[in-house]
Amino acid sequence: MSYERDNIRKMLGYSSGEQPISADSVKLNTNENPYPPSPNVLEAGTNFQYKKLRLYPDGNSDGLREAISQLHTVKQKNVIATRGGDELLRLLVTTFVSPGEKIGMTYPTYSLYPVLAEIQDCPIESIELNPDWTVPDHFASDMNDKGVKVCFLVNPHAPTGTFTNQSRIEELADELNSILVIDEAYIDFIDDELQSCIDLIPRHNNLIVLRTLSKGYSLAGLRVGYGIGQEELIHPMLTKTKDSYNLDQISQSIAICALEDQEYQRKCSALIKASRKKLRKSLEKLGFAVAPSQANFLLVTIPEQFRLKAFDLYEELKTKNIFVRYFNMPRLENKLRISVGLPEQNKKLIEGIEILLSRTK
Amino acid sequence: MSYERDNIRKMLGYSSGEQPISADSVKLNTNENPYPPSPNVLEAGTNFQYKKLRLYPDGNSDGLREAISQLHTVKQKNVIATRGGDELLRLLVTTFVSPGEKIGMTYPTYSLYPVLAEIQDCPIESIELNPDWTVPDHFASDMNDKGVKVCFLVNPHAPTGTFTNQSRIEELADELNSILVIDEAYIDFIDDELQSCIDLIPRHNNLIVLRTLSKGYSLAGLRVGYGIGQEELIHPMLTKTKDSYNLDQISQSIAICALEDQEYQRKCSALIKASRKKLRKSLEKLGFAVAPSQANFLLVTIPEQFRLKAFDLYEELKTKNIFVRYFNMPRLENKLRISVGLPEQNKKLIEGIEILLSRTK
Repeated sequence: MSYERDNIRKMLGYSSGEQPISADSVKLNTNENPYPPSPNVLEAGTNFQYKKLRLYPDGNSDGLREAISQLHTVKQKNVIATRGGDELLRLLVTTFVSPGEKIGMTYPTYSLYPVLAEIQDCPIESIELNPDWTVPDHFASDMNDKGVKVCFLVNPHAPTGTFTNQSRIEELADELNSILVIDEAYIDFIDDELQSCIDLIPRHNNLIVLRTLSKGYSLAGLRVGYGIGQEELIHPMLTKTKDSYNLDQISQSIAICALEDQEYQRKCSALIKASRKKLRKSLEKLGFAVAPSQANFLLVTIPEQFRLKAFDLYEELKTKNIFVRYFNMPRLENKLRISVGLPEQNKKLIEGIEILLSRTK
Repeated sequence: MSYERDNIRKMLGYSSGEQPISADSVKLNTNENPYPPSPNVLEAGTNFQYKKLRLYPDGNSDGLREAISQLHTVKQKNVIATRGGDELLRLLVTTFVSPGEKIGMTYPTYSLYPVLAEIQDCPIESIELNPDWTVPDHFASDMNDKGVKVCFLVNPHAPTGTFTNQSRIEELADELNSILVIDEAYIDFIDDELQSCIDLIPRHNNLIVLRTLSKGYSLAGLRVGYGIGQEELIHPMLTKTKDSYNLDQISQSIAICALEDQEYQRKCSALIKASRKKLRKSLEKLGFAVAPSQANFLLVTIPEQFRLKAFDLYEELKTKNIFVRYFNMPRLENKLRISVGLPEQNKKLIEGIEILLSRTK
């Protein structure tokens, strides 16, 4: 006899990219920021009063929520601080979708969304993106017809990097009967003329914007994210469904200090955007098709005529201690997702691919 | 229109003890350890390589799980590391109890259990403790009759401090058809001749033992706990239902270092146990009845004949910057839960009570 619930027994868990052991690996498989976090982070960690750890943290992370609200010129009641963006995603499901109710998303998308739906025992309504990875015109009306309760949209999109403009998101928020979650995990890497959806929140009571410090602030190892939305959506998560003390004291302190150093974040993001441009050119020169990306990764198509298929290339690169991401899924089988690394890492990647291609010509 | 699920709309959230702002408050209301964490913790925090935070943490906390498994002489596959004990409690509900299925507990108990049941939309079966706060003989048979899926038992019990012996827990595990969760949050404070239930795990596939570093290791602010059980219970939580990266890098490092310093933990626990004895005597001398406690707190009954009722005493102590816990609940209305503090804090408490009692005589 097994004690698991049926839906849990049937599901597979989330599977993340490999974490290679060796420190000199070229790790371009999990979209980590190649630059270290702000010097503020080291300072916050070493100056932290470790004796205070005997006390419970502030359960609502008010200091951190205040810093976030100032950064985005919103009110503190419109902010929830969470253990990475992932906790916010889980809370949205727990709070707003009963088992059996539907959760909407695109196909493809961030692979955690379907896992969270399965844990809550919720059917998934998945609408395929257009051939150019944009959101189909019929997305909102289809979701309304299906009666979904929450729609997840990652923007810039993962794993393609495609960006949906603010005006299009506003149309979706207007038309959808459900909550619309805009997962802006990669927003810090968009071109300067593009815009976040946080500005839309005062006009839309069904919109939540997710942010994380994992990517733009080089803090994947810290697990801090947040959500911004109207109080009606934030309040039940903050006061009822989140774990009472979801963020520890150290994470709260470090996150505040990291957010204060906007200049550093912008500088690193600018470097990554410049590298992205260069890496794209190098990959195109090798004959790959590369989807336009506003994120810190590129989705690369391996042409039909290449002897080396995407999975082979992924495996071969691994033998060279270079890690990229392969998804064995429809529309992605001939593609690799490659995080933008440091210039020297990107160079090693290109050289590695060149050698492999020349061998198989 | 509100987007909340019906069960979430109807529920109240968890309410924790006040966190007074002033550093010189005598804070005896949330069972925090009055001693600072091990010096290892400061060392781990200041020596941590903050640059590494750009990378994702080990999602399964393998290093920490290894340290835990060595400490308790169990296998790593029998251990899950969680964000405080609270995350483990939530995962147990998520993984093993479908909405509508029943969750069993005693009355009174740790007030988070009913909140977690409400979030999952699960009816609560609550069996009242005996007048001396021991678990009734009919507990397991009643729970079986009600068809509960998971039973939560906090041992030492909160908020009374009563301890249920290992042999009695084994009887319960034998008889129950459900999973039995023994929440050993306060186990580090039991008398030396008493025993944890971890030894029972090889013989019982329905038993999970919860531990936390919040109390015994003075790390409430860090949010690290763990569960030990047979692989069949641990594996689905570890691979399917927990957030992919539930513990950040720093917490994992610090927790390992804290667990390594067993000597320090034992020394602080011994001091607290000695203070507990002394505090009990002082309270009894003032005329209060004090339940026998194996935890780092005492449940104190204010006698009928006192003019000052429990709530008044709680409020009056607050005006003196002394914080204790009052529960406005059946069987607890005439009681206060008082955490064992430093000797000087306990002294201030007793003096504070003495003054208040003398005023109202």
